Amino acid sequence: MVVKRIVDLRSDTVTKPTESMRAAMASAEVDDDVLGYDPTAARLEREMAKIMGKEAALFVPSGTMANLISVLIHCDIRGSEVILGDYSHIHIYENGGISTIGGVHPRTVKNKEDGTMDIDLIEQAIRDPSFAICYPTTRLICLENTHAHSGGRCLSIEYTDKVGELAKKYGLKLHIDGARIFNASVALGVPVHRLVQAADSVTACLSKGLGAPAGTVIAGSKSFISRAKILRKTLGGAMRQVGIICAAALVALEENVGKLESDHKKAKILAEGLNKIKGLIVDVASVETNIVYFDIQEGSSITEVELFKSLEAHGILVMPEGPFKFRVVIHHQISESDVQYTLSCIQKAVTGLSAQNGGN
Amino acid sequence: MVVKRIVDLRSDTVTKPTESMRAAMASAEVDDDVLGYDPTAARLEREMAKIMGKEAALFVPSGTMANLISVLIHCDIRGSEVILGDYSHIHIYENGGISTIGGVHPRTVKNKEDGTMDIDLIEQAIRDPSFAICYPTTRLICLENTHAHSGGRCLSIEYTDKVGELAKKYGLKLHIDGARIFNASVALGVPVHRLVQAADSVTACLSKGLGAPAGTVIAGSKSFISRAKILRKTLGGAMRQVGIICAAALVALEENVGKLESDHKKAKILAEGLNKIKGLIVDVASVETNIVYFDIQEGSSITEVELFKSLEAHGILVMPEGPFKFRVVIHHQISESDVQYTLSCIQKAVTGLSAQNGGN
Amino acid sequence: MVVKRIVDLRSDTVTKPTESMRAAMASAEVDDDVLGYDPTAARLEREMAKIMGKEAALFVPSGTMANLISVLIHCDIRGSEVILGDYSHIHIYENGGISTIGGVHPRTVKNKEDGTMDIDLIEQAIRDPSFAICYPTTRLICLENTHAHSGGRCLSIEYTDKVGELAKKYGLKLHIDGARIFNASVALGVPVHRLVQAADSVTACLSKGLGAPAGTVIAGSKSFISRAKILRKTLGGAMRQVGIICAAALVALEENVGKLESDHKKAKILAEGLNKIKGLIVDVASVETNIVYFDIQEGSSITEVELFKSLEAHGILVMPEGPFKFRVVIHHQISESDVQYTLSCIQKAVTGLSAQNGGN
Amino acid sequence: MVVKRIVDLRSDTVTKPTESMRAAMASAEVDDDVLGYDPTAARLEREMAKIMGKEAALFVPSGTMANLISVLIHCDIRGSEVILGDYSHIHIYENGGISTIGGVHPRTVKNKEDGTMDIDLIEQAIRDPSFAICYPTTRLICLENTHAHSGGRCLSIEYTDKVGELAKKYGLKLHIDGARIFNASVALGVPVHRLVQAADSVTACLSKGLGAPAGTVIAGSKSFISRAKILRKTLGGAMRQVGIICAAALVALEENVGKLESDHKKAKILAEGLNKIKGLIVDVASVETNIVYFDIQEGSSITEVELFKSLEAHGILVMPEGPFKFRVVIHHQISESDVQYTLSCIQKAVTGLSAQNGGN
Repeated sequence: MVVKRIVDLRSDTVTKPTESMRAAMASAEVDDDVLGYDPTAARLEREMAKIMGKEAALFVPSGTMANLISVLIHCDIRGSEVILGDYSHIHIYENGGISTIGGVHPRTVKNKEDGTMDIDLIEQAIRDPSFAICYPTTRLICLENTHAHSGGRCLSIEYTDKVGELAKKYGLKLHIDGARIFNASVALGVPVHRLVQAADSVTACLSKGLGAPAGTVIAGSKSFISRAKILRKTLGGAMRQVGIICAAALVALEENVGKLESDHKKAKILAEGLNKIKGLIVDVASVETNIVYFDIQEGSSITEVELFKSLEAHGILVMPEGPFKFRVVIHHQISESDVQYTLSCIQKAVTGLSAQNGGN
Repeated sequence: MVVKRIVDLRSDTVTKPTESMRAAMASAEVDDDVLGYDPTAARLEREMAKIMGKEAALFVPSGTMANLISVLIHCDIRGSEVILGDYSHIHIYENGGISTIGGVHPRTVKNKEDGTMDIDLIEQAIRDPSFAICYPTTRLICLENTHAHSGGRCLSIEYTDKVGELAKKYGLKLHIDGARIFNASVALGVPVHRLVQAADSVTACLSKGLGAPAGTVIAGSKSFISRAKILRKTLGGAMRQVGIICAAALVALEENVGKLESDHKKAKILAEGLNKIKGLIVDVASVETNIVYFDIQEGSSITEVELFKSLEAHGILVMPEGPFKFRVVIHHQISESDVQYTLSCIQKAVTGLSAQNGGN
Repeated sequence: MVVKRIVDLRSDTVTKPTESMRAAMASAEVDDDVLGYDPTAARLEREMAKIMGKEAALFVPSGTMANLISVLIHCDIRGSEVILGDYSHIHIYENGGISTIGGVHPRTVKNKEDGTMDIDLIEQAIRDPSFAICYPTTRLICLENTHAHSGGRCLSIEYTDKVGELAKKYGLKLHIDGARIFNASVALGVPVHRLVQAADSVTACLSKGLGAPAGTVIAGSKSFISRAKILRKTLGGAMRQVGIICAAALVALEENVGKLESDHKKAKILAEGLNKIKGLIVDVASVETNIVYFDIQEGSSITEVELFKSLEAHGILVMPEGPFKFRVVIHHQISESDVQYTLSCIQKAVTGLSAQNGGN
Repeated sequence: MVVKRIVDLRSDTVTKPTESMRAAMASAEVDDDVLGYDPTAARLEREMAKIMGKEAALFVPSGTMANLISVLIHCDIRGSEVILGDYSHIHIYENGGISTIGGVHPRTVKNKEDGTMDIDLIEQAIRDPSFAICYPTTRLICLENTHAHSGGRCLSIEYTDKVGELAKKYGLKLHIDGARIFNASVALGVPVHRLVQAADSVTACLSKGLGAPAGTVIAGSKSFISRAKILRKTLGGAMRQVGIICAAALVALEENVGKLESDHKKAKILAEGLNKIKGLIVDVASVETNIVYFDIQEGSSITEVELFKSLEAHGILVMPEGPFKFRVVIHHQISESDVQYTLSCIQKAVTGLSAQNGGN
């Protein structure tokens, strides 16, 4: 039987736990973490707090819960507003939970192509407390680093610090959705803790590029984290012998952070290769980390549904991102050979469809 | 004693009840409207339903409650999203109540200078139900006619109908915040019911241009209004012998709708006059109804705080609307003479400040 | 034409504004109260703050909104719990708004026959903060004086003060739903301010026994009331020229408080009369204010639907309150003659039904 | 070094994963479950759906999330009320999340000693829809089987079916918090699916008696579960390669359900032993499953703090449950020898304290 070669580029969330992670999980020392006794969870949380440069940290089941908890703790008083990017993950991809579950009112600022928001526009969006009679109260600004919707672009220390100063000036909190903060750290060559220094809270995903089976860690002050722990319980995110999962995450920290640089290189190779395929376009310069967006060139005879299906038939799984646009994401289980294979499959698919559709 | 002449142009909400309104209130037939027996409230609601061309109507204490109830009824299932203008009154000036009280997630689309939103952008903002796993569910589109933040611009029948068709196509509801729908009706020369024909619900303020002491009416289908009545009770907006206020509103309908055309003319005169004052700018063409925005010309030596204070000293009350920008609103208790007096006071203020600051 | 005599005993909310109220409304000095300029609203609020012995007060459209605002301000942090009576008006008759609109978790304690809750049970219901990991945070205790569901029974100074001490001991707030606090004050012979001294906030209805057309006033500290004002706006309870209504309320304070004592006497006469009717039972001793509950005697052949309809046919309107139970409420527009007429009608109805049903 | 013998009886949540669970986790086939591809999660969910006799099932991180999701899905329309026990786990121990996160209004009915609620009282608590103007809408009844706060008492098929009929009669849904439904099934000798047949949704914990490291499964109709999946994502309970945990749960189902009967026997032995200790009281007859409550006898000189500390010093960990009351819970990692050792330690502790305090 021939097993078909599949290259799954839909997301870096599709990684499988490695052998060393499985071994760690099989032997992890665990206890009831809801009662606060799991030693492996505690170790992961201490470790992550150190990496993020914060007093304390908390393991939660997902990035969505991590952001939800963070926004809700900073906005725990009824009538709160959060400023965030109009294409931030929290605003677009997290079910609107901050409003529908948390009653927090979002005020969006346009995300620029590089994932930042214009600082002047953020400042203008802050509500004047002297009009509290008709305004909600701004309590929080959210950044996202790397910024997924802009193709994994990195927010610099300088930018983040400036937003942090703005937040301080107005008595606001700053939260960073750091789902891929390790990618940003590696790409920019600066330690994570420096990159998020201005933030009151920051999340980091363990099951994207780092490859752990599940989980995100929130870091912040001790008092923030102790309130986060209560809200995690309320939402149902506290798990009993969760050290099993945390053991895999500790391995991920040790073994997989070092692989991100190579992921970024492979993404660049993929981007350049895609850009060379007639009929496809990639903004190669914008590929800073492990995400690549490519477009079907305007005027092409190929539709995105055709291309998606043809790629699927070739075993290449990609994520559709709106008309004529696709996303591919590299992770440590995508080899250089996978990248080359992907490029050849996509070339074949495009050529085939062009021929079939009788046009460019 | 000399009483200083005050011209209060901050809003059309500052009108005082007329003698005929006061007489109507003094003799109104009333009963307990929470139990559903107030005959005057019932009469107003029937009258307004007819004007708006809907099956039923409900009196509520304010426009904020009217919009809140409407959005919450259309979005009564947890996980709902509403599409509305980024400078709509609901989004900016109503305390974020749809989220903070109602748990509804807002998705904003840019308001153009004429108060509309690009229809393509609305369509793009509608969530694809096949991604319900990470998206909230779009349930409602909101328009605002006239659109306050754009200076009281009118949305046409054509535009409104098109948005209505879009809503239908996607199974969404359409709500119109018609705080000043009578102004739009008069300015466009079309009956209110035609203007809001495409809407599932519409609100109309009785205490702005119409001059009643308080209240807004919501209109919609019978089933919508019977649910609105329950939510009005929950929010605390049901009042006992409310016919007192409704009696004034009935007078407002009879006597004051006809005065709006004259309000619009006075606004135009004011706009043209302001535009002639050196140092001030008005986009005269944009003045379609009773609202005028004027700006201090770029490069002027006058600050908005100075001008605001100087106008106040002259007895001219205006509404500051951000850097270098002011809003004035005409209503039936502002006479032509008030307009001329206002223009001369503003001229004096600007001349005085320019001289004092040594140049424009 | 003969107009049928109607005695409407369903509630003290059905009063009609008096001539002096109508005159006051017709001549009231008003301004835009949303902007904070209505002089008559301000006068009423000052007057009520004095009566309630609190720093400040706020007029709102209804008792439901008054309670909703009060509970939500005291419980403005997500995760709050309120302790209140299992038959309190807030818990049973206000649409569950504190949860469904405010996200506050109610913890009920059994209301005793006299409308109080056992103080030990209140204390047991207070959550231990050391179990915050699985408990909401108790932030508020609510009392209701007079307690409607127990038949308008009065809570004494002693009881209220004790609950106040308990609240202080645990760092909780105390809110009193004083819909009929004037009735309690008159019945107990103590000034309102003393009766609510222990409370952080208290509401008083103006449109029940006092007979104003609408409205309730909340009183509390300055900072509490300034937050209440914002929430009133959010909920949509801020009204423009609301001084019209407030003018009637000022007349109510001046002219109608003095009539409550007579209401209570009439209620007592009614209770005693009803108790003498064979087949009906009233706990006469429990009639402390203006509310009377009467039951159809166990084993009677008369059903409550029959009796309700028969009374209605006689022009006597009462409120059904569950199997075999009815409520009647006295107010200043029910005369002694109305009471006697009511008794004779009820006697007739019961006699007629008994005869018809051929039994006791 | 001597390792002190610890017997942890605080809860059945403190179990450690067995060797076979660890092996299963180490070799589990997994994929991205947020995208819906994890085969092991799918297998667990199919298996559990079958056991519970429902169309579909969903794995979630905790029982708290399982109940939260279930209540919120059944009560997804604003203005909903749920009827549940005043000492149900949902009402007391889940942070009030159904209100503070979900805006659902709870209406409690007294839990009797056997964990049931009087069916007549449930019926009386159902809101009459004809009073919707002031009532929330009853949409759900919740039961808990076994009922934790009553000491793990079982609800019978008969009782559950009757509540189910009541729910149907009024168009309500029935949810069963089945955190320990396997214990009930074993104790009553009836299959789980029959016990929960009347329920629209049911949860079952995998990390209590069954000993899996984490997780609860919700079961219900296909449409219910597909909505639950979306809400799980909103709350942040969707995890990527969650099959790791699910693999352990599958082992738990296979290997540990059979051990529950022995747990119950050991609980009975413990209960009888404790009851024989002078100064302690156990209602032995009430011990139906794996939970034992014991009280310090009234009039004893021993305080609960003293006893708790003395037991801790002996290595016996128990859960304080209010004045003079403790809870102990048996699970498969508590041996008969542990039970005997526990009894001897408690005997020693009580004797020691009695002697020290100079009295009984």
